[in-house]
Amino acid sequence: MHESSALLTDRYELTMLDAALHRGTADRECLFELFARRLSGGRRYGVVAGTGRFLELLKHFRFGESELEWLRDEGVVSTTALDWLADYRFSGSIWGYREGEAFFPGSPILVVEGTFAEAVILETLALSVFNYDSAVATAAARMTSAAGSRPLAEMGSRRTGERSAIAAARAAYIAGFSATSNLEAGRSWGIPTMGTAAHSFTLLHDSEEDAFRAQIDTMGAGTTLLVDTYDIEEAVRLGVRLAGPELGAVRIDSGDLPIVVDQVRRLLDELGATSTRITVTNDLDEHAVAALAASPVDSYGVGTSVVTGSGSPAMGMVYKLVAHRDDQGDWISVAKKSAEKATVGGRKTAARAYDRHGVAREERIYLGDGPAGEHEGAADAASERPLMVQLVEGGLVDEQYLGAAGTRQAREHRAQAVAELPPRAVSLTRGDPVLPTVYLEG
Amino acid sequence: MHESSALLTDRYELTMLDAALHRGTADRECLFELFARRLSGGRRYGVVAGTGRFLELLKHFRFGESELEWLRDEGVVSTTALDWLADYRFSGSIWGYREGEAFFPGSPILVVEGTFAEAVILETLALSVFNYDSAVATAAARMTSAAGSRPLAEMGSRRTGERSAIAAARAAYIAGFSATSNLEAGRSWGIPTMGTAAHSFTLLHDSEEDAFRAQIDTMGAGTTLLVDTYDIEEAVRLGVRLAGPELGAVRIDSGDLPIVVDQVRRLLDELGATSTRITVTNDLDEHAVAALAASPVDSYGVGTSVVTGSGSPAMGMVYKLVAHRDDQGDWISVAKKSAEKATVGGRKTAARAYDRHGVAREERIYLGDGPAGEHEGAADAASERPLMVQLVEGGLVDEQYLGAAGTRQAREHRAQAVAELPPRAVSLTRGDPVLPTVYLEG
Repeated sequence: MHESSALLTDRYELTMLDAALHRGTADRECLFELFARRLSGGRRYGVVAGTGRFLELLKHFRFGESELEWLRDEGVVSTTALDWLADYRFSGSIWGYREGEAFFPGSPILVVEGTFAEAVILETLALSVFNYDSAVATAAARMTSAAGSRPLAEMGSRRTGERSAIAAARAAYIAGFSATSNLEAGRSWGIPTMGTAAHSFTLLHDSEEDAFRAQIDTMGAGTTLLVDTYDIEEAVRLGVRLAGPELGAVRIDSGDLPIVVDQVRRLLDELGATSTRITVTNDLDEHAVAALAASPVDSYGVGTSVVTGSGSPAMGMVYKLVAHRDDQGDWISVAKKSAEKATVGGRKTAARAYDRHGVAREERIYLGDGPAGEHEGAADAASERPLMVQLVEGGLVDEQYLGAAGTRQAREHRAQAVAELPPRAVSLTRGDPVLPTVYLEG
Repeated sequence: MHESSALLTDRYELTMLDAALHRGTADRECLFELFARRLSGGRRYGVVAGTGRFLELLKHFRFGESELEWLRDEGVVSTTALDWLADYRFSGSIWGYREGEAFFPGSPILVVEGTFAEAVILETLALSVFNYDSAVATAAARMTSAAGSRPLAEMGSRRTGERSAIAAARAAYIAGFSATSNLEAGRSWGIPTMGTAAHSFTLLHDSEEDAFRAQIDTMGAGTTLLVDTYDIEEAVRLGVRLAGPELGAVRIDSGDLPIVVDQVRRLLDELGATSTRITVTNDLDEHAVAALAASPVDSYGVGTSVVTGSGSPAMGMVYKLVAHRDDQGDWISVAKKSAEKATVGGRKTAARAYDRHGVAREERIYLGDGPAGEHEGAADAASERPLMVQLVEGGLVDEQYLGAAGTRQAREHRAQAVAELPPRAVSLTRGDPVLPTVYLEG
């Protein structure tokens, strides 16, 4: 595996750069914008995730000897372009929604300003990161709402690519999950890790009693025992007999959960294990979590559905040129005209407007140069909050958005941003975005 | 990013190992099996992909100082387990279906033999790789069938995690795609790369003519021009005027494709550009590709749908303990009993049985020790083909399955394996697997 992120890129980014270098247009100052035309899956709101990862990858977006040699051998671009790539450092500026922010159709989630050459070649990487991470975070936020105060653990590493698994754990954590099973996500991003045991562990031993004893001896009575390898009732009795009422939790991974969970709770209480928790993990999605709201479940483990965006595995975000400077230095708005894929040209800033109760009512996109905070806003709005922050200035990444600290900050911001949305935002049925997007002249 | 693949692992793999070490059961010889209980999405057959990637990752599955230090600091496992992990090298053996092979519910896609400790900790990584890669290959194979003799290019890097994008390009190639837009997939796996140009390139320039000129001057007349930024008809006329009838291709990325493609073909022919090809790329999936069968399309670019498994983004494969040796050295079959997740215990080999016309008719899974080739088979079968090969022997990976050569071999094998299936295998409607899975005593 190669350290550099530079070849995580579509070939055409480099051939366009090559052609622009030859035409003398590569140095034109440009604005690219990353946004979603719609919220796939009938989502009521989206959750931005990927920012911290993208900024880390941006720092490793370098064409080293090994990358250049391969491009040369394959004849991908001319030697002019190879020389240019050898010196590549992104030297422009990037603004964007905070990671964890709610977004809506048209929200300018990322605005990249730089020469055409230096901004266009970030397209593929930026979209890969934001499309996947935001799809996971958007699905995960629905699960967080459905779970209410009960904790959710992300356990889906085995159902997505092995490196996407790290991104998914991080996105789910930002969206309110409390932990992940993925160790690398713990190491790389400071996310709490958790785990129970698999059926194989029970099957390995000569009896369920042997297996439970081994686990309790090593992990302590506070461990979580998997009780559905053979007979659930027998396993619960056995677990309490071996660990005592201090048994941490039992995990149920199969069966008709509302019924089984009730039975297990009654049994645990009868056995005096009133503080032993029940965690369930059987192919859950947000609808299954919601359906268990009235059952005595203490926590959920979610796998496949969260790491695959629960039916919407990619966010559908695009990265479009919206303006470039002309030879006089003035910005020219540009936009594609094709009917169903029309874009709004020009530089944009964004703000969320609130009603007098502090509930979000409108996604405002201001066309023009000024920061959104300086706009007057519509007369009936009690207030508005500017949504964009500067992430990169003159090539320098703002370190506060990186690493474990940036991830924690995004998680906190997500909680606030979602709490401000109208109550119907938590609806799990397909529908329209919960806020309208309004374009205003800046 | 860390080189080692060892922490791409669920925490419970290591805590189970820890508990088994303490119990004295960690060294029990075990057989784990990777298989799918069903084909998600009503697929008629699955395509195995991921083998070559998994074997590469297996070679880097090492707990180095940095991994051990993190595990120690986090208190994930005991020092006994840390010492064991420090020396970890997989020393067991692995058999499996060839990469590119068709598979069915219950097919033993991978059989891992080793001690419990050394085999259990590969679970997460193996599943991540096979579940994602096979989901992509299975979807991609449907697109390959739908496209007939027309080439398909994989262009979905931007719609999946940035490292999954490489795996997706590789899986699609194995499933019959001819090229990818992803440069790293070209470098890492020898897959042909391709590319056209984006709308941003046209918008950057003062006119479409400027943009086309720049592209043709740099890339030659054989390039592919994107013609739907403004007006398709004008763009096609312009492209032929600038490049002449040698213009390689035009790409259409929007609009009502069957109508637009017909118009563009007529226009190109009128202009004398009879050999200029038409490539289409507008959110295609296998159904859209099939719907264009009668249109004069020359090639397809597929993005989102292929990298997200076209509605089934994870294959649903599991990794289960199926047998272990007892203290006398005899193999004991084990299986989970929960109704909807029951597994078939014991060592298995597999063969595909054919009718007398050479058409596959049955997936045979033999329970027992011998290689499938030695079984007699049912009396009415003209022949059968053993499906499993040894991938790893005593910890040593068979190099023929690695790298670009292994990938090419998998691509060839996929074509043969799919060609042998009954004709209804290419049906795009949801349905039952095209072959029944039959369990036989070995």
